[in-house]
Amino acid sequence: MPMARKIDEIDMKILKLLAENARYTYKELAEKLGTTRQRVSRRMDKLEKSGVVIKYTLIPDLNKLNHVHVILGLTLRPTVDLDEVVEQLKSIDYVKIIEKTLGSHSLIIHLVGPNDMALTEKMIRSIAKEIHGIDKMDITFVTEICKFEVI
Amino acid sequence: MPMARKIDEIDMKILKLLAENARYTYKELAEKLGTTRQRVSRRMDKLEKSGVVIKYTLIPDLNKLNHVHVILGLTLRPTVDLDEVVEQLKSIDYVKIIEKTLGSHSLIIHLVGPNDMALTEKMIRSIAKEIHGIDKMDITFVTEICKFEVI
Repeated sequence: MPMARKIDEIDMKILKLLAENARYTYKELAEKLGTTRQRVSRRMDKLEKSGVVIKYTLIPDLNKLNHVHVILGLTLRPTVDLDEVVEQLKSIDYVKIIEKTLGSHSLIIHLVGPNDMALTEKMIRSIAKEIHGIDKMDITFVTEICKFEVI
Repeated sequence: MPMARKIDEIDMKILKLLAENARYTYKELAEKLGTTRQRVSRRMDKLEKSGVVIKYTLIPDLNKLNHVHVILGLTLRPTVDLDEVVEQLKSIDYVKIIEKTLGSHSLIIHLVGPNDMALTEKMIRSIAKEIHGIDKMDITFVTEICKFEVI
């Protein structure tokens, strides 16, 4: 893992503001921080290049879009090559989020698809079939997002 | 649950572009869609008001910020009032994400805190102690985000 560049207090303030609303303009950020647009923009460039910012995105209410959101907690056999499994999962379009984890699960993945039980079952069974070395799969359906903050 | 307003193809295109990069300007979105800034802005207003957009945010690499990211899968006793538990959790600052779920877990929550094992243990134990009716708690530490898409 590459060492992180030193993140100072102003960086943290910028990150927290963008976590609150990623669409704040440079002007709005500069006003909130009492600095200039140029300074904000320069710092954001650095934060983006250093990999601290994975992405700016929107969090949708998938129910309102008539989509299902399933979280699978996968426990893999200890001998399995985790990176190989990750590469395999990355190429599956409906696998939206992949997190490497330690603890109860080896991987947590999020599936998103049309709100149709037969299709949902197909997605889940296809993961179970195609990924070798799954010891246990915890299946959880997200019904409501009650809080969403990141830092 | 209130009925969603009809989401058409152009709405979906806007949402997908913003999911890809929430910082696209109205101008950039309009160019990508072959329409005007005014039309994009009007549609985004509607999508925001309808609750389809929960928020625009950044996804940080918490490791690089020297933070830990823990996902707890909580299984609650069937008699527990889920909404009461959610309200209790909402007020805890280090509980960043709360999702109501069906299946292996009744709730999935994300904790974020300083990268310190003693503090992390304290956060987790405090949840276990303060929230009544937890039958089972799956504890998972996120070590790497390998893919992050939303729709």
